[in-house]
Amino acid sequence: MATAGFHVYDTTLRDGAQQEGMNLSVADKLAIAPLLDELGVGFIEGGWPGAVPKDTEFFRRAAKELELKHSVLAAFGATRRAGARAWDDPQVRALVDAETPVVTLVAKSDVRHVERALRTTPDEGLAMIADTVAFLVGEGRRVVVDAEHFFDGYRYDAAFTRAAVEAAFGAGAEVVTLCDTNGGMLPHWVTDVVGELRGALALEHGRDAPAGAPILGMHAHNDSGCAVANTLAAVEAGCWHVQGTVNGYGERTGNVDLVTVVANLELKDGLRTLAGDGLAESTRIAHAVAEITNISPYGRQPYVGASAFAHKAGLHASAIKVDPDLYQHIDPTAVGNDMRMLVSDMAGRASIELKGRELGFDLSGQGELLSRVTARVKDAEAQGYTYDAADASFELLLREELGERPAFFRVESWRTIVETVAGGSADRHDAEAVAEATVKLHAGGERVVATGEGNGPVNALDQALRHALTRVYPQIGGFELIDFKVRILDAQHGTDATTRVLVETSDGQGSWSTVGVGPNIIEAAWESLIDAYVFGLLHAGVEPQTAG
Amino acid sequence: MATAGFHVYDTTLRDGAQQEGMNLSVADKLAIAPLLDELGVGFIEGGWPGAVPKDTEFFRRAAKELELKHSVLAAFGATRRAGARAWDDPQVRALVDAETPVVTLVAKSDVRHVERALRTTPDEGLAMIADTVAFLVGEGRRVVVDAEHFFDGYRYDAAFTRAAVEAAFGAGAEVVTLCDTNGGMLPHWVTDVVGELRGALALEHGRDAPAGAPILGMHAHNDSGCAVANTLAAVEAGCWHVQGTVNGYGERTGNVDLVTVVANLELKDGLRTLAGDGLAESTRIAHAVAEITNISPYGRQPYVGASAFAHKAGLHASAIKVDPDLYQHIDPTAVGNDMRMLVSDMAGRASIELKGRELGFDLSGQGELLSRVTARVKDAEAQGYTYDAADASFELLLREELGERPAFFRVESWRTIVETVAGGSADRHDAEAVAEATVKLHAGGERVVATGEGNGPVNALDQALRHALTRVYPQIGGFELIDFKVRILDAQHGTDATTRVLVETSDGQGSWSTVGVGPNIIEAAWESLIDAYVFGLLHAGVEPQTAG
Repeated sequence: MATAGFHVYDTTLRDGAQQEGMNLSVADKLAIAPLLDELGVGFIEGGWPGAVPKDTEFFRRAAKELELKHSVLAAFGATRRAGARAWDDPQVRALVDAETPVVTLVAKSDVRHVERALRTTPDEGLAMIADTVAFLVGEGRRVVVDAEHFFDGYRYDAAFTRAAVEAAFGAGAEVVTLCDTNGGMLPHWVTDVVGELRGALALEHGRDAPAGAPILGMHAHNDSGCAVANTLAAVEAGCWHVQGTVNGYGERTGNVDLVTVVANLELKDGLRTLAGDGLAESTRIAHAVAEITNISPYGRQPYVGASAFAHKAGLHASAIKVDPDLYQHIDPTAVGNDMRMLVSDMAGRASIELKGRELGFDLSGQGELLSRVTARVKDAEAQGYTYDAADASFELLLREELGERPAFFRVESWRTIVETVAGGSADRHDAEAVAEATVKLHAGGERVVATGEGNGPVNALDQALRHALTRVYPQIGGFELIDFKVRILDAQHGTDATTRVLVETSDGQGSWSTVGVGPNIIEAAWESLIDAYVFGLLHAGVEPQTAG
Repeated sequence: MATAGFHVYDTTLRDGAQQEGMNLSVADKLAIAPLLDELGVGFIEGGWPGAVPKDTEFFRRAAKELELKHSVLAAFGATRRAGARAWDDPQVRALVDAETPVVTLVAKSDVRHVERALRTTPDEGLAMIADTVAFLVGEGRRVVVDAEHFFDGYRYDAAFTRAAVEAAFGAGAEVVTLCDTNGGMLPHWVTDVVGELRGALALEHGRDAPAGAPILGMHAHNDSGCAVANTLAAVEAGCWHVQGTVNGYGERTGNVDLVTVVANLELKDGLRTLAGDGLAESTRIAHAVAEITNISPYGRQPYVGASAFAHKAGLHASAIKVDPDLYQHIDPTAVGNDMRMLVSDMAGRASIELKGRELGFDLSGQGELLSRVTARVKDAEAQGYTYDAADASFELLLREELGERPAFFRVESWRTIVETVAGGSADRHDAEAVAEATVKLHAGGERVVATGEGNGPVNALDQALRHALTRVYPQIGGFELIDFKVRILDAQHGTDATTRVLVETSDGQGSWSTVGVGPNIIEAAWESLIDAYVFGLLHAGVEPQTAG
């Protein structure tokens, strides 16, 4: 008999978005969802339709725009209001209207919250769970019930929490997730509570549950610093569904980091949890999500952090080189990360060679060139450049070392001015600022001086550059800048920090990404703009006109 | 009979300093040690005298300059070289010369490391431990032995690891610390290994060990995300000495965060671990250490993080107001932290009222004002403002609605120019760009025109603004911009997107965050800078001088 598959349930887009300082747009969510699918999670909780207008919009667009291979979407919402009927509650109807295969209901399982937050009776609290689950099951939905404040509730009044779990399963819920909403549990408490609950309700361990049988889940927060261990303890005790977020995003100390949980389960406990082989890509995926949330990745993050396999070169350097396995807990390639100190000349050259091949350059046997490019990439990355998100800039770097970077134009100078007109009336309520830029360059045998205006300095520079180049290279009219990202790299220096700019440009068919770095945001933007235009012209097959 | 006291052993100054990017001077270490003492740790490991010259210097100066109330100093070093005598080994002699009451020796307890890194026999490996411990005990030192790679070694060859522990205890070591050097253990493995070891060596549980009896310790790294739980598991299994670092500093994913461990043991398990009542000061202490290491505090850090007790969920605001204990795992004052309410796009009047109270404004009963502020916050958030990360801007907004925003100055106009000098030789390899800004404003009854230079336009504007204001408001000289974040909100518009800038400013004691939004990055930065200076002046108690 087939057993129920293990559930990896991602809530980055809903509970993760509760993190302080995070504010995801619909476009951000639509960009993150395919990355979660690539990681191979089974479920993607997209938001709370009805309660949050942009989440309603997300589900509407997701149904049309997303093509998920491994994951199904879940809409999150609450049980019906006290005293209402489930089908009369607009919030519950919005869950049906989201048209997701899965609906996840938050249900109060701590009797104190039923009485003090919902202000209703324990019996009505249980009826709210049963009615809403039954209604949604009747609408053809798979239903997950998140038993909010479960552990605190259990320690206060175990009988009510058990009744809440029974109400959910009795009405047809597929999963009841035990939530450590306040995040204060310790692993041995989790072990005890899950074991007792399973005993009292005669529930099988998730590994032994036949397909379709009810299973328990775990939802952990990291307030006691034990979210990962609490989740592992829950799985060991029989939970077969784990919720978490990429990079451990979430309110207060965050939700449990789903990648850490999954890596521990797969690599240490030998449990198969993800669909596909996304774990080997998890470092790249976690960083790509961080690019979208624009929250700096945490270097010390387990498994996928930039420092996770970085060894401070010291007394052990040569020993590490001979026996890396003696100095790291797993092979970092299992999560797509690298042992940093051991990115030896050879390893670096091998990956540059591979990358070159991907871009159409056969560099095999060109040892001296490979060493030069490797050294230049390392140097640039130390300055803050990042080529994994800027293939086009990497290709231009490679072409430069090959002597094949075309010279479409030569820049003499540029300038940009942002100013307000006189006449502001208070400290900050100025008249709107205007931006203007002038570019002087040589192209097609001529000296060109062009000025552009824009609503910001980078936009003005972009306009000036277009004006200057369009006569000689009309193809530029078909290029559009479609994405523009700024990251302050060394925040400790305040406004005096190093800045990285990533630009994505489209020609209507495809798009390419370029990078610029500098102490000056305008200079960094300029560098990435120039790379963007040069790459676009090059790949449009345009012949360089003598720069003059 | 008195039992051995629980040992809290801090290694921030030694193992913590292995963190990527950390470089502690002797002065830094001398500044951190008193903070550790104030926290109440029993032991402060100061460094490796002999091997690291500045650590030798630290111990020399510490003996004269530090007056520790709760802690004793430990010098860290290695067992003698293979084939040498302990008293002949200069590195061992340097440990004696450090004149600390405690010496901690790192000893190889994984037989593979003995053979491959030390390149000696297992028997000589054991003799190196026994000889060095015996020599140091003979010199009157209390000796802790850190059994390096203990857990990996145990899983490979348990007999050798046991022999290493016995060699240390047999020669008079007070503690043998079981090190998860590679950081990959999971809690149930730790439970099993510690239990088996205690059984094999007939060692009592730490809580039952009489004073002077040998005890086991735990040293965890966070590579599997379980450092805290592994440490708690070790204590539960009988270890009575825990090592860790403040803020979890350390190589790779870091050492275990000692404050999280201690807070869990004291507040959840009821174990007395620290001398004095430093736990209630731990938030301030952890942040003070971060000021010295110059590593940005991690907002999501358990217990002491800035976000650790920050609530965003708007729907629960009214319930939190009534029953805070139902929404947090401990009383935040137990660790010197605070509950914070975040103003988010789910903001309702209840959370605005609560936030106001937190900032010292009693808004209860002011229904009309609350509605106005709530509407304004929602409107601003729709434009891209975010107040959950910008308390200071929220306070200024509130004061504006109350008619209490002071007018320190009035801006007439500002301008910023970024340009390269002529003479670039290729498309992107320009001469470096320079930035300049001019601000015209009225303050203290005068019209002031000031110019600033910087390595970027925002830096130049900041300089110009400082020059313009310093004569009238010299307090501005004490403000420093310590963080600067840029977020492109609507990336689909390319360089034409809306930009949000968050600025964090410090006056040396505290810091505050402000936000600006606009289609123009410079304008958004300007808005957040102005808020930063106005808020800083207001809270420094400065009287506005007629703007004129």
